[in-house]
Amino acid sequence: MSSRRRSRTLPHTPVILAHGGAGARIVTPAQLACLADALSRGYTVLRRGGHALDAVETTTRFLESSGHFNAGTGAHLQLDGVRRMDAALMEGRTLKAGAVAGIEAVRHPISAARLVMEKTAHVLLIGPHATRFARHFKLERQVANHRRSALASARRNTSREAVTATGPQRRMLRLYRQMLGEETVGAVALDRRGTLAASTSTGGIAFMLPGRAGDSPLIGCGIYADDEAGAVSMTGLGESIIRVAMAKEIADRMAMGTSPTTAARLVLEKLDRRIRKVEGFGAAGALVLAPDGRFAIRHSTPRMCAGYWAGTGQPVVADRFS
Amino acid sequence: MSSRRRSRTLPHTPVILAHGGAGARIVTPAQLACLADALSRGYTVLRRGGHALDAVETTTRFLESSGHFNAGTGAHLQLDGVRRMDAALMEGRTLKAGAVAGIEAVRHPISAARLVMEKTAHVLLIGPHATRFARHFKLERQVANHRRSALASARRNTSREAVTATGPQRRMLRLYRQMLGEETVGAVALDRRGTLAASTSTGGIAFMLPGRAGDSPLIGCGIYADDEAGAVSMTGLGESIIRVAMAKEIADRMAMGTSPTTAARLVLEKLDRRIRKVEGFGAAGALVLAPDGRFAIRHSTPRMCAGYWAGTGQPVVADRFS
Repeated sequence: MSSRRRSRTLPHTPVILAHGGAGARIVTPAQLACLADALSRGYTVLRRGGHALDAVETTTRFLESSGHFNAGTGAHLQLDGVRRMDAALMEGRTLKAGAVAGIEAVRHPISAARLVMEKTAHVLLIGPHATRFARHFKLERQVANHRRSALASARRNTSREAVTATGPQRRMLRLYRQMLGEETVGAVALDRRGTLAASTSTGGIAFMLPGRAGDSPLIGCGIYADDEAGAVSMTGLGESIIRVAMAKEIADRMAMGTSPTTAARLVLEKLDRRIRKVEGFGAAGALVLAPDGRFAIRHSTPRMCAGYWAGTGQPVVADRFS
Repeated sequence: MSSRRRSRTLPHTPVILAHGGAGARIVTPAQLACLADALSRGYTVLRRGGHALDAVETTTRFLESSGHFNAGTGAHLQLDGVRRMDAALMEGRTLKAGAVAGIEAVRHPISAARLVMEKTAHVLLIGPHATRFARHFKLERQVANHRRSALASARRNTSREAVTATGPQRRMLRLYRQMLGEETVGAVALDRRGTLAASTSTGGIAFMLPGRAGDSPLIGCGIYADDEAGAVSMTGLGESIIRVAMAKEIADRMAMGTSPTTAARLVLEKLDRRIRKVEGFGAAGALVLAPDGRFAIRHSTPRMCAGYWAGTGQPVVADRFS
């Protein structure tokens, strides 16, 4: 695999990684095919000399509108029957970032996040105001509603318990979440200039309280990009990822010289030691890309729908990595 | 100052630090007196063997209801004339955390954050749903409205420009923000058990877009606590702090053995190098507390209203530290 090794070691050889979540029990062939397609589109941007930020946005937009993942068109509903989405992106040269949390009825939350980054002096807009902001810029509206019928009745049954959930109820909610999977999407890219970027987009977890934000829109938790450290996009149960601020810790370790593989492994082990061993859960998946093009896809869940491409051969996609 | 040195070096000697922002041009004697009072109340919790989390919540509640700072009763209004607040707290032993962003009409946002931590399986609730959540638990409502009359007319004049602000307009908004100060509040504490905790509470920046969330409710950005690393509470322009994920980087450096003073200094220097030198601003202030009781109060702004107390003599408060 000399072509693969070349893409991993030479600086400024463009490379892109993407994922479609690490919590699902089954990754379908359609999801893998969709991911390969998304990688190709992102790589095309890089090959033409485009920016890493444009590449991760392109890849994420494709995954959002595919309906195959829990993001954009395929997003979960919250307990009140509304689909609220979170997304973020970050650029490693300037450390500029944009994010939205709890945005509704927008086809591409990732592009709303980009507008926050480019058109405001802010990083994060939340709730109805994020939706209004997207309307102001005439972002495409979301129309499809694939998941509503399948899940609506189960959600109705659990909606009342959630606010005052006690131990056993929380365990039940946790179980439901596991059954439904966590097909958040994300990407990281390195462009020819040597600039890194990262993205995340999600519909959150099923059965969550309205207004809950997970790790995806939070800089340092679900996402980070710094040309002097690395780019990271996380997936898994957001609450666990937030408590370790995983993306930033992986980046901080890379800034100290640790390889992407080791940095991801150490922080996934920390998640296990500090969260899972106490709470009974706490697995996650990570895309990690170093400024020199070395990368890692690692997960402590049974499966992770992910892949990478550096332009040679075919995009590599699989449902299991580390 | 042997008593002070003792509190700084012996493990499990309780200590508490608090701040009232690092962006104001003038720190009033009333603010310093209020901060000393808040430190005393938090320390009383620690002296009686209470938890670090209870201590930082007690201190923060006192600052929130004082009206002297941009948090709780004294919070800034957003561009639509509504006071939306952010708050977070985190406990270092379990890494449990709770946060609210964009909560309205609640007297103590910090206690809403605590309820998110204790009564839900989530970490962050945002927008109207956070407000509804607080109502569900019958949290005290906010009534006072000190700042409205003084700032209302200036805000009306800038509200329209903000969404589509161009360069010169953004600079104007930035100037207004500087004039109005950034008296976010926060605290960090170490209890007799050796457990760390951190808190933040803010009304955000003046003239910000409705729905903007800063660093304060974001774990890893404005706040972090880990018994194996340290506790951090940040203040300054949230967008800059988020882009560096400052609290987590300071904690990560302490986990590698760096002292609180050096960790804070290095990350404030990074903020200057990566953000201020490019954007023209990017100063901040930090409370940093190590698991062994060593601590630092550092800021790259001209002033920081802050202080500490370990129970001997008087609480030490000042408007300038590093």
